[in-house]
Amino acid sequence: MGFNKSAIKERSRRVLDPVVTLLASIGVPPLLVSVLGLAGSFCGAYVIARGSLFWGGVWAFASGVCDVLDGSLARYRGQETKFGAFIDSTFDRVCEFVIYGAILFYYIERGHPLLLLAVIWVAMGGSFLVSYARARIEGLGHRCTVGLLERPERLTLLIAGLVLGHTVLVVALILIAFGTVITVLQRVQHAYQVTRREP
Amino acid sequence: MGFNKSAIKERSRRVLDPVVTLLASIGVPPLLVSVLGLAGSFCGAYVIARGSLFWGGVWAFASGVCDVLDGSLARYRGQETKFGAFIDSTFDRVCEFVIYGAILFYYIERGHPLLLLAVIWVAMGGSFLVSYARARIEGLGHRCTVGLLERPERLTLLIAGLVLGHTVLVVALILIAFGTVITVLQRVQHAYQVTRREP
Repeated sequence: MGFNKSAIKERSRRVLDPVVTLLASIGVPPLLVSVLGLAGSFCGAYVIARGSLFWGGVWAFASGVCDVLDGSLARYRGQETKFGAFIDSTFDRVCEFVIYGAILFYYIERGHPLLLLAVIWVAMGGSFLVSYARARIEGLGHRCTVGLLERPERLTLLIAGLVLGHTVLVVALILIAFGTVITVLQRVQHAYQVTRREP
Repeated sequence: MGFNKSAIKERSRRVLDPVVTLLASIGVPPLLVSVLGLAGSFCGAYVIARGSLFWGGVWAFASGVCDVLDGSLARYRGQETKFGAFIDSTFDRVCEFVIYGAILFYYIERGHPLLLLAVIWVAMGGSFLVSYARARIEGLGHRCTVGLLERPERLTLLIAGLVLGHTVLVVALILIAFGTVITVLQRVQHAYQVTRREP
């Protein structure tokens, strides 16, 4: 999954280039796009909790697009700031958090088995730990981009599952749960390798 | 809650000093204490899921003691490492995650209202975000110790709730949910203040 990751990222950014130019020309600040992305996730969570996985997926997709746009827009306008980076990644965590909460709510309401709820719980916790491990390693002064399942891949799986319905969603959640646990272990190993000689 | 926080921390460390000396004298490595703390949380989660909040609280307390001990032991032995700090805080997140998961499971099993499940969800997500925001700010090269509800306060509330039973636990969860959301906002403001002049 890793070999052409940056190529895919680059291509998806290029598709959005005209939108970035448009937003920049009408003077939209990157922070507004971040806030819209966050709001999109709350809308997605709301419709999932109300019973529509499909429209939840559509909102999650729109939120994901905003998440790519805000960074691109900041770069385009020469307004990349540390605070923007902080808000961007903190909002990402909140977005994942509310979507998983809504999915859990959806399945609790429908009386699904505890095993499925546990899978959702692990997928959510694993996603969080993947990002936490990276932030923590960066806090110790190192880079960390290793890992099977970063946010773009997780989000793609989650959106595909939501849009395609229950069965695909369950498979996606199982993949995310396993994949994020593996990614956390990869990052623990990475942390060990880069810091072992440092007091 | 903030004014004598470091005094309390210092005192609780001093109480454990003889234990630290003992562990150091028999050659226990700090990492083993961290692993025992993590294992303690899993035991706590297991007994909560099996129906005993009280014993879950006792295990969570034991796990919290290990969490203070590992750092003190590393300092005492002059073995403080960046990897140790990374593992320590990553394990802390896993500990909180499994305990909240077990509490959620406990209340789902007993058919408690969705509002209570939502409170647990927010308390868990808020706790995660408080720690994430700090790690992210440190990743941007700044210190971050501001905030109403850091881990020791959260853990104290949670353990008190578990040991004293359902009613106190619900109050503790509500306090943690509100307190962590406030703390996240405090840290967002802090991030803005310390980074706003940096590109």
